[in-house]
Amino acid sequence: MTGRQGHQRRYYLSDIPLEEARDRFHTALRQAGALEPRTAENVPLAQARGRVTAGPVWAVASSPHYDAAAMDGIAVRAADTTGATETAPVSLTVGGTAIGTAIGTVSDAETSNAAAGGGEPQAVWVNTGDPMPAGLDAVIMIENLHQVGDDHVSIMAPVAPWQHVRPLGEDIVATELVLPENHRLAAADLGACAAAGLSRVPVRRRPRVTIIPTGNELVPVGSELKPGDIIEFNSLMLSGLLEEWGAAPSVTPPVPDVFTAIRDAAIAALDSSDLVVINAGSSAGSEDYTALVVEELGQLLVHGVAIRPGHPVVLGVARDKPLVGIPGYPVSAMLTAELLLKPLIEQWLGQAGSSRRPVVHANITRKVVSPTGEDEFLRVKLGRVGEKMVATPVQRGAGVIMSLVRADGMVRIPRFSEGLDAGSDVDVELLRPLSEVENTVVAIGSHDLTLDLMSSFLRRLPAGLSPPSVNLSSSHVGSLGGLIALRRGEAHLAGSHLLDEDTGEYNVSYIRRYLGDVPVALVNLVGRVQGLIVRPGNPMGIAALSDLLRRDISFVNRQRGSGTRVLLDYKLKELGASPQELRGYEREEYSHLAVAAAVNGGSADVGLGILSAARALGLDFIPLLNEQYDLVIPLVHYESDLLRPLLDLLANPEFRKAVNDLGGYDTTNMGRLQEKIG
Amino acid sequence: MTGRQGHQRRYYLSDIPLEEARDRFHTALRQAGALEPRTAENVPLAQARGRVTAGPVWAVASSPHYDAAAMDGIAVRAADTTGATETAPVSLTVGGTAIGTAIGTVSDAETSNAAAGGGEPQAVWVNTGDPMPAGLDAVIMIENLHQVGDDHVSIMAPVAPWQHVRPLGEDIVATELVLPENHRLAAADLGACAAAGLSRVPVRRRPRVTIIPTGNELVPVGSELKPGDIIEFNSLMLSGLLEEWGAAPSVTPPVPDVFTAIRDAAIAALDSSDLVVINAGSSAGSEDYTALVVEELGQLLVHGVAIRPGHPVVLGVARDKPLVGIPGYPVSAMLTAELLLKPLIEQWLGQAGSSRRPVVHANITRKVVSPTGEDEFLRVKLGRVGEKMVATPVQRGAGVIMSLVRADGMVRIPRFSEGLDAGSDVDVELLRPLSEVENTVVAIGSHDLTLDLMSSFLRRLPAGLSPPSVNLSSSHVGSLGGLIALRRGEAHLAGSHLLDEDTGEYNVSYIRRYLGDVPVALVNLVGRVQGLIVRPGNPMGIAALSDLLRRDISFVNRQRGSGTRVLLDYKLKELGASPQELRGYEREEYSHLAVAAAVNGGSADVGLGILSAARALGLDFIPLLNEQYDLVIPLVHYESDLLRPLLDLLANPEFRKAVNDLGGYDTTNMGRLQEKIG
Repeated sequence: MTGRQGHQRRYYLSDIPLEEARDRFHTALRQAGALEPRTAENVPLAQARGRVTAGPVWAVASSPHYDAAAMDGIAVRAADTTGATETAPVSLTVGGTAIGTAIGTVSDAETSNAAAGGGEPQAVWVNTGDPMPAGLDAVIMIENLHQVGDDHVSIMAPVAPWQHVRPLGEDIVATELVLPENHRLAAADLGACAAAGLSRVPVRRRPRVTIIPTGNELVPVGSELKPGDIIEFNSLMLSGLLEEWGAAPSVTPPVPDVFTAIRDAAIAALDSSDLVVINAGSSAGSEDYTALVVEELGQLLVHGVAIRPGHPVVLGVARDKPLVGIPGYPVSAMLTAELLLKPLIEQWLGQAGSSRRPVVHANITRKVVSPTGEDEFLRVKLGRVGEKMVATPVQRGAGVIMSLVRADGMVRIPRFSEGLDAGSDVDVELLRPLSEVENTVVAIGSHDLTLDLMSSFLRRLPAGLSPPSVNLSSSHVGSLGGLIALRRGEAHLAGSHLLDEDTGEYNVSYIRRYLGDVPVALVNLVGRVQGLIVRPGNPMGIAALSDLLRRDISFVNRQRGSGTRVLLDYKLKELGASPQELRGYEREEYSHLAVAAAVNGGSADVGLGILSAARALGLDFIPLLNEQYDLVIPLVHYESDLLRPLLDLLANPEFRKAVNDLGGYDTTNMGRLQEKIG
Repeated sequence: MTGRQGHQRRYYLSDIPLEEARDRFHTALRQAGALEPRTAENVPLAQARGRVTAGPVWAVASSPHYDAAAMDGIAVRAADTTGATETAPVSLTVGGTAIGTAIGTVSDAETSNAAAGGGEPQAVWVNTGDPMPAGLDAVIMIENLHQVGDDHVSIMAPVAPWQHVRPLGEDIVATELVLPENHRLAAADLGACAAAGLSRVPVRRRPRVTIIPTGNELVPVGSELKPGDIIEFNSLMLSGLLEEWGAAPSVTPPVPDVFTAIRDAAIAALDSSDLVVINAGSSAGSEDYTALVVEELGQLLVHGVAIRPGHPVVLGVARDKPLVGIPGYPVSAMLTAELLLKPLIEQWLGQAGSSRRPVVHANITRKVVSPTGEDEFLRVKLGRVGEKMVATPVQRGAGVIMSLVRADGMVRIPRFSEGLDAGSDVDVELLRPLSEVENTVVAIGSHDLTLDLMSSFLRRLPAGLSPPSVNLSSSHVGSLGGLIALRRGEAHLAGSHLLDEDTGEYNVSYIRRYLGDVPVALVNLVGRVQGLIVRPGNPMGIAALSDLLRRDISFVNRQRGSGTRVLLDYKLKELGASPQELRGYEREEYSHLAVAAAVNGGSADVGLGILSAARALGLDFIPLLNEQYDLVIPLVHYESDLLRPLLDLLANPEFRKAVNDLGGYDTTNMGRLQEKIG
């Protein structure tokens, strides 16, 4: 071994199963005394919401703290009312002084008409909440007083003792348990503490977590970018999660990939933290120093966990505190934080295991191959299609942060398994409330930029207290994939632009072939222009599809099953050319924008796609033909309430204008029911 | 009508159904233009978590923003690897300069060993994340390199173009939709925005809500209390809720019950708020000015809503803004805020209807009589007992703030209904996560202070990453009520201390009589001392039970079916006395502490109860007898995992010590299985 490789292979990752890794980690932390719940701090009630009680909370006062009138009316001695009936009302002398004295209100002077002179009155005017005058034990509501004079009232029914009186301690008795230990404080709990005479409450100190971003290539959020720059946003996401879990995160400035610099940053952080997280450098490359730092400062317990994404994880204990390295890819960072850091925070807050997510059963829409030996955590989109809950995997790359944005749930594929068959039952941990999932329109099929616009418009509510807005979840698997998803009952609708070479008609023959007896409505979304996407100024001088056969031209293709790929193959056949003649035919992208991005980045000279994608990135465009892009919607969904807002949107002039502004779209037939098939 | 009553009846509440009230309110607000989502403010990503996007968020950069190596290894031209096999490896010249130039790392100088001279190398060393050198289109992982020299490597398999390369825009393409409008930002969303080149994000301004507490009797949280004082904690709870919903609440100093003062406070608040809430004074009493203020400043839309608790509600529009009065009882205040204010906040944040709570089906354990004409919102405790989800109503008083603390869910009893039969099916809106409910031990039966201690100890976890802690939900319905709940399958256990007059034995004969063929374990919890609770110094000179028959003594009783009531009746019978001879026999309290509180407050001279309750409030105690307090546990639960932590706790020395410290308890037999019955 020489040179660079010598450095790169200093460490070997030895992936161990998640449960074993956790176990090693927790055992060592327990031995170091680092798993105890955090100590108490007394915070004012107004700052305590969301915090966790550090001990039982006992009442220091009763509530009410005196016997209180529970109604507006008169306080009486129940014994004085015995025998009152409609035919023989009982008259009581009434006064008001007792209230004025007891509660000293501003307005009593004007409103109270105490019985003048003549000894103690039998009854006393009271408002709700007033203390019961001494010797009186019941309240009669003002509505039940028969005749009212300046100094007497009459009643027509007897009352029982303690009627309409809130006895002292009805709600809380001093010394009573108000809240148990390790209870997360909700708004009502704060009221109960206040009612129980408290102004502060002992809560667990927030665990302090220091995140140390490392890497020479890191630049701050919002920087001007040059190739190789990595925007340092992992700390932003990790801080967000940690705050959500109840910790107090702080982030150091980025540290370069230098062993001593990382070590010194870790030492400083250990002093002031309950947990130190070094982000990136946890693998075994030449610039991966985390494991070395942990080994130098303490005990390296785990280097590598058999999970996907996220396997290059470093777990250690240093100075009796957890010192952890998590991977740099954002999805890996988020997942390992959730699997390995969240349990610590929960434990420290006395909340171990309390935040398990709800689980739903679903059918997975696609075959998923997963390597044995690793637990895979698959992100999925969810939706209820008819009676069926369906889960569609999103992109699996550890660097695809949008997979976390798009995911509604997570499926764990155990390490003993080779994956999932299409249609198989899975348990899905919910990342969003079920109600949101139930309110989601599932679109699987061809990609078009108007679907993004549609998604955003559907989240915009008319002013008024509307039904919840609809979520549109669209997965881009190409037109054919969409029709297959519809047949399987996995989607509410599919975008499709499949040209029948023989008839020149769009979609109809494909629907008959692939959907068999599922009755569908075929609704036009847009007409759009397909053409060649090239760099500004068309530097390679591309004029027609035949130029794609030139040896100096590199092409970027769309995936099999996409309408655009069908179109390309059709056009090549017309030219009498074979796919192998195109340089780059085998390079597949999954959306028009991805094709445009490849051209824009220079790794391809040309791609076939729609005008709006070219225009979005400021590229040039050579139009080839107009095509029809439709929504294929099974009738049962077409007529459902769920899809109503989406279908209504197609008639919305604001939406049509926004689509036209994208360029290359014809919205003349938008929303028109082409035909019902099947 | 004269004097005080003239003031009190200025207004009449005309209760209208909830939906109609909301409708009037929202129609008027829509006309005033006050229902539009709030405007946007641009906040840095680090402050945006939990906020709601005020428009669609589009990417301004692609991610990755260049073609990037996805592995540590060498970048190659795929074409150069064609034909490589194990028997005929291909050798490639390799250099490292390209990396050094592109990413300028600190350590490259020492680790890169560029091929010296001799033209462009065929391959270039790359680390994960490095930009792909110009002209190269694939990466070979370092693990797959066969022979590595200073200036060449050899490989034994060809690679496809774009292998282990993350193409520009793989995750996000500039101009793509990152997040739709009205999306609540989670931690991962912030990362996606940063990856898309943004440093700030437009979010909806938090709706400003001003709460005006009114009332002469209000004192601040934590005050020394005198009779008639009301601790002003509604604003604390309401602020908590409003923050939770995403609003920015502020609270004015309390305003006295003076029309002009309240009016002026409302005028000032309307200027600076989206919503003004006057708390209390919303009814129709002499000091209830809210409706008058609304009428003076704008339009009074609703005065009185047919809901329970919470009917005295004032809804109005003033200066094109909602001006609302909500009731003073804390439970009413919280409920009306939820029903009437939350929809406004959600609407303003573009989240209308998005926070519907999950609903579970349950069996109600008790008959509930509810007045027709009002929608009642009943708070219940929940638990899963065997296969059955059971819902036990908690106290219904609008002033009982602990009912909100204890409740796990809410049942709506429609205004057309007269209530619920015991055992009937109800839909329960969950106030806590279902996982917490599933993890709850349901105790229904006699009250003892050790149950409170038990609840708190069960929330305390051993250090270690434990299973979630167990919640103990105990409802106090007396010993007999507990046995009946067990028979109906509505509880996991019942506390019981029922003395058989004939045998002198506790519980056994009652279990045989009431539980029939349900096999149970009878486990001792404590021995305890019952006696007479009197004020300090025993001012009435009470010495024995027979003193309770004195005419100068007032007694406070426990409810029918409680073991203590059974004991009293038994003792009275021994004395040859009839219950009617006791002054206060008909005054029933539901716990030992409530009895002690009545004595402490002076409204009764004496009660029968346990030593710990007397001691808790510093009262004197005249011991009468030792009794046995057991837990009755159906065998099926006795042997379940759910109850294991509770049964283990009975052997915990720390717990026993805490019980002994309460006073009057004998823990010798704690946890001992007395016998199995049935």
